[in-house]
Amino acid sequence: MRSLIDVLDLTVNEIDELIEVANDIIANPDKYSEKCKGKKLATLFYEPSTRTRLSFTAAMMELGGNVLGFSEASSSSAMKGESVADTAKMLSCYADIIAMRSPKEGAPFVAAKAATIPVINAGDGGHCHPTQTLGDLLTIKREVGRLNNLTVGFCGDLKYGRTVHSFINALSRYENIKIVLISPEELKLPNYVKYEVLDKNNMEYRETTSLEEAIPTLDVLYMTRIQQERFVDIDEYNRLKDSYILTLDKLANAKKSLAIMHPLPRVNEISVKVDEDERACYFKQALYGKYMRMALILKLLKEAEDKKKEERFSLDDVVINQYICTNPRCITSTEQELDHIFRCVDKEHNIFRCIYCEKRAN
Amino acid sequence: MRSLIDVLDLTVNEIDELIEVANDIIANPDKYSEKCKGKKLATLFYEPSTRTRLSFTAAMMELGGNVLGFSEASSSSAMKGESVADTAKMLSCYADIIAMRSPKEGAPFVAAKAATIPVINAGDGGHCHPTQTLGDLLTIKREVGRLNNLTVGFCGDLKYGRTVHSFINALSRYENIKIVLISPEELKLPNYVKYEVLDKNNMEYRETTSLEEAIPTLDVLYMTRIQQERFVDIDEYNRLKDSYILTLDKLANAKKSLAIMHPLPRVNEISVKVDEDERACYFKQALYGKYMRMALILKLLKEAEDKKKEERFSLDDVVINQYICTNPRCITSTEQELDHIFRCVDKEHNIFRCIYCEKRAN
Amino acid sequence: MRSLIDVLDLTVNEIDELIEVANDIIANPDKYSEKCKGKKLATLFYEPSTRTRLSFTAAMMELGGNVLGFSEASSSSAMKGESVADTAKMLSCYADIIAMRSPKEGAPFVAAKAATIPVINAGDGGHCHPTQTLGDLLTIKREVGRLNNLTVGFCGDLKYGRTVHSFINALSRYENIKIVLISPEELKLPNYVKYEVLDKNNMEYRETTSLEEAIPTLDVLYMTRIQQERFVDIDEYNRLKDSYILTLDKLANAKKSLAIMHPLPRVNEISVKVDEDERACYFKQALYGKYMRMALILKLLKEAEDKKKEERFSLDDVVINQYICTNPRCITSTEQELDHIFRCVDKEHNIFRCIYCEKRAN
Repeated sequence: MRSLIDVLDLTVNEIDELIEVANDIIANPDKYSEKCKGKKLATLFYEPSTRTRLSFTAAMMELGGNVLGFSEASSSSAMKGESVADTAKMLSCYADIIAMRSPKEGAPFVAAKAATIPVINAGDGGHCHPTQTLGDLLTIKREVGRLNNLTVGFCGDLKYGRTVHSFINALSRYENIKIVLISPEELKLPNYVKYEVLDKNNMEYRETTSLEEAIPTLDVLYMTRIQQERFVDIDEYNRLKDSYILTLDKLANAKKSLAIMHPLPRVNEISVKVDEDERACYFKQALYGKYMRMALILKLLKEAEDKKKEERFSLDDVVINQYICTNPRCITSTEQELDHIFRCVDKEHNIFRCIYCEKRAN
Repeated sequence: MRSLIDVLDLTVNEIDELIEVANDIIANPDKYSEKCKGKKLATLFYEPSTRTRLSFTAAMMELGGNVLGFSEASSSSAMKGESVADTAKMLSCYADIIAMRSPKEGAPFVAAKAATIPVINAGDGGHCHPTQTLGDLLTIKREVGRLNNLTVGFCGDLKYGRTVHSFINALSRYENIKIVLISPEELKLPNYVKYEVLDKNNMEYRETTSLEEAIPTLDVLYMTRIQQERFVDIDEYNRLKDSYILTLDKLANAKKSLAIMHPLPRVNEISVKVDEDERACYFKQALYGKYMRMALILKLLKEAEDKKKEERFSLDDVVINQYICTNPRCITSTEQELDHIFRCVDKEHNIFRCIYCEKRAN
Repeated sequence: MRSLIDVLDLTVNEIDELIEVANDIIANPDKYSEKCKGKKLATLFYEPSTRTRLSFTAAMMELGGNVLGFSEASSSSAMKGESVADTAKMLSCYADIIAMRSPKEGAPFVAAKAATIPVINAGDGGHCHPTQTLGDLLTIKREVGRLNNLTVGFCGDLKYGRTVHSFINALSRYENIKIVLISPEELKLPNYVKYEVLDKNNMEYRETTSLEEAIPTLDVLYMTRIQQERFVDIDEYNRLKDSYILTLDKLANAKKSLAIMHPLPRVNEISVKVDEDERACYFKQALYGKYMRMALILKLLKEAEDKKKEERFSLDDVVINQYICTNPRCITSTEQELDHIFRCVDKEHNIFRCIYCEKRAN
């Protein structure tokens, strides 16, 4: 493994090791302050994402490394006309590792195939955001004390929120995880996630529209934002929105050990008054994300040095240019001379998915 | 003191100490080149201000530290929807000190209350710009030799220029300062500044519309730009503008020891030919600003380390949510769940001012 | 010599020395990793050019130095109203060396005259781009083994491509260089370049419209992009474009030792399938550009330290404010109080050219 595109690219053991390193960094920061001396991280942000970019930047700096790149719509327009693969090859001349954010799903995967240095997916459209998930896992491990035997509630927009889908996927590999899905009807978890993740892994889950009802059972409450744009009917939005805002009142019957999480930025879905509650973990979560990024950078640079470049882009079970990906946000819609490749992910039902964006062939 | 919002947050003694450190940095730069090794400055620029940002960046780099942040309208839009307080809390995970520029008056104050690291106001709308003033004070100290017994002329836009108001405020604490206010009628110093700063501190001052007449008496001439937009009558602007442009001619009767200052950027208010005159100090002023920022960063990081966090946000003489701030540029107009707090600044006349933007209650 | 505006500012000997240093950096990178410790490069990019900026940034970082500056249209708008000369003076307070990109031709020259630190032209409109040329020369030296006795083909847009004009100029100083100009009629090399460079230096050259026909004779093939916008007649563009796309087919009769170059970004003028051919040098070219920038930064900083500031802005053969430059992209069209200066470049024919943008007086 040389790059990280999807959190599932990492085994549970590898994640355990990253958590161990992150804990060691927290305990002994000085030990790591020169680990990346003379190394450079390139932050290629084709869309702005200030939080993620600054987290990667701080991570590299705390390892003693340098950071270069671009961060803006206007800069990325400077790359217009250049394929993602060419940009990745060029950046391989200027840096030792890449963190890439793109609105195009599969773009970091294409970059990883072309680059001669490791690529970290820092978010590709609605597809994956693995370093967010890694930070979330460290948060639970440190704040709740375990990653097994948990009841985890997800509240808010479960339909479009990529953080939620990734995170459920990552949790599916731990034991005895119960999921509580808290959302209005309009924003329920999509059926394909239920089928492909929850059902396939025999995860226990239930759905509810009531945050208050769900809270007392939870070890972790993962809040997300409900965006007005998602509603056809504004009246419906206005009627509902307050019931999904976390207030001190709603926490009255919560466990003392509850961990309240949020990927940030928060708008108003958690009252500022909750910040002082010791169960509020969302700013710690931002901090832990940095430490997991540090651990990940160290791991990938180490593997690159050891020349352990396994061919992670297995071409088993794929068909080339037989299906065409119809997802307009998929990198295949813009990248030059790029084959459309689909992989059979379910032989029984004959389901093929695009290897870049995971859109199902039809 | 942990943060710097207004130059008046610093005592005259503290400013003297900063000047002393800045002079030592100028004399012995190598002594300071690793002082901030492993430390990070976050430059949060919600509006572009390239000069100020580069000055802070150079300052931190010359102390051996790292710099991260954002600098652009497009980046700051990435922060849209996130409160200033949340951004400050998040950044406290990624940096050791913040320099913040915002069009919202009081935003750095809100950030300072939320952050767990020191915040430096790098300009908040028309409100304060304390590090500009600190550099200006060092310039006079080094170029004229003293901060007492000075005749200081301010020329140009005295109505809207925040640099001028801050600087007069800072000078009010030194002895025997005479102020000469040189401007067209349209751009005279506002009455409230005269009353609250000049009169209250018994400072001697006079007003004139003639730059030429004023020059021979001055130890310091502080030039500012006159913007056409400020005039209702374009003809009036055209008639006046040349008389406020500093040329070699107008310097004929000036003192040999005069220090000509300008906050930059200059457009045409000082002829390029004046640059070669040894009394021209405006580029040195940019240099001195960097050294005062270095001294300030050192001071605030030292105090943060010593855990000397005094509660500088005194709640004496304040009223909460009794008045509502009506300044559309005040941070209270946008920040979520933020109390409107006013402080009584003049008991005799019962004057209350917003603690964020200093707008008077009405 | 303190600044680098045009590649011809460097003697052939100096270029040889830069190539030698670059080769030594490639062989012994650790030897150079602290050479610029404590030094700062300012990247002043008034228009986005991500590749060039990241190359300079990586170069300075690999020398152990720091980088600050701006990179965006939005940042450069923050400089609006400030003259290039003032910006250069201000930056001299914050950095040790400047790399400047501007759409205004001659802007780096104006900056170099005002700055007290070395300025490197990182591209000024359609005028010069010397560090691109330096990297190109290193590429040929390393990949073909020599800079004399070469047949060099230029293919594509030879009319507007500044890379091509600079490069031909640089090659004119080596021995026995044969030039093959491959382009559609619409995009032929301008006559003045033929006259002032090729003819004046007695360089052998021929023109052809056929890439396929030219390839077998070449030691170097320099590809450039043909932009649709350059054609009045779209049908003509569509008819022609494929014949200037380099494919594996067209390489069938090429020499085994051919070096295929391209300044990047490529759009579709070289098939991705050519990338795997060992004659493809365009990504190496990006890498070599970085090493030549490192060598150049070292040279200019060394000279600045040695105070060897020769007056490179010779005022021989010039006339001041006698002609007015009519090039709307020339820095004289915007810079305040800037004299229009023309130099006699051909006494026989009485040709005068603007010293900023080289536009001919008329």
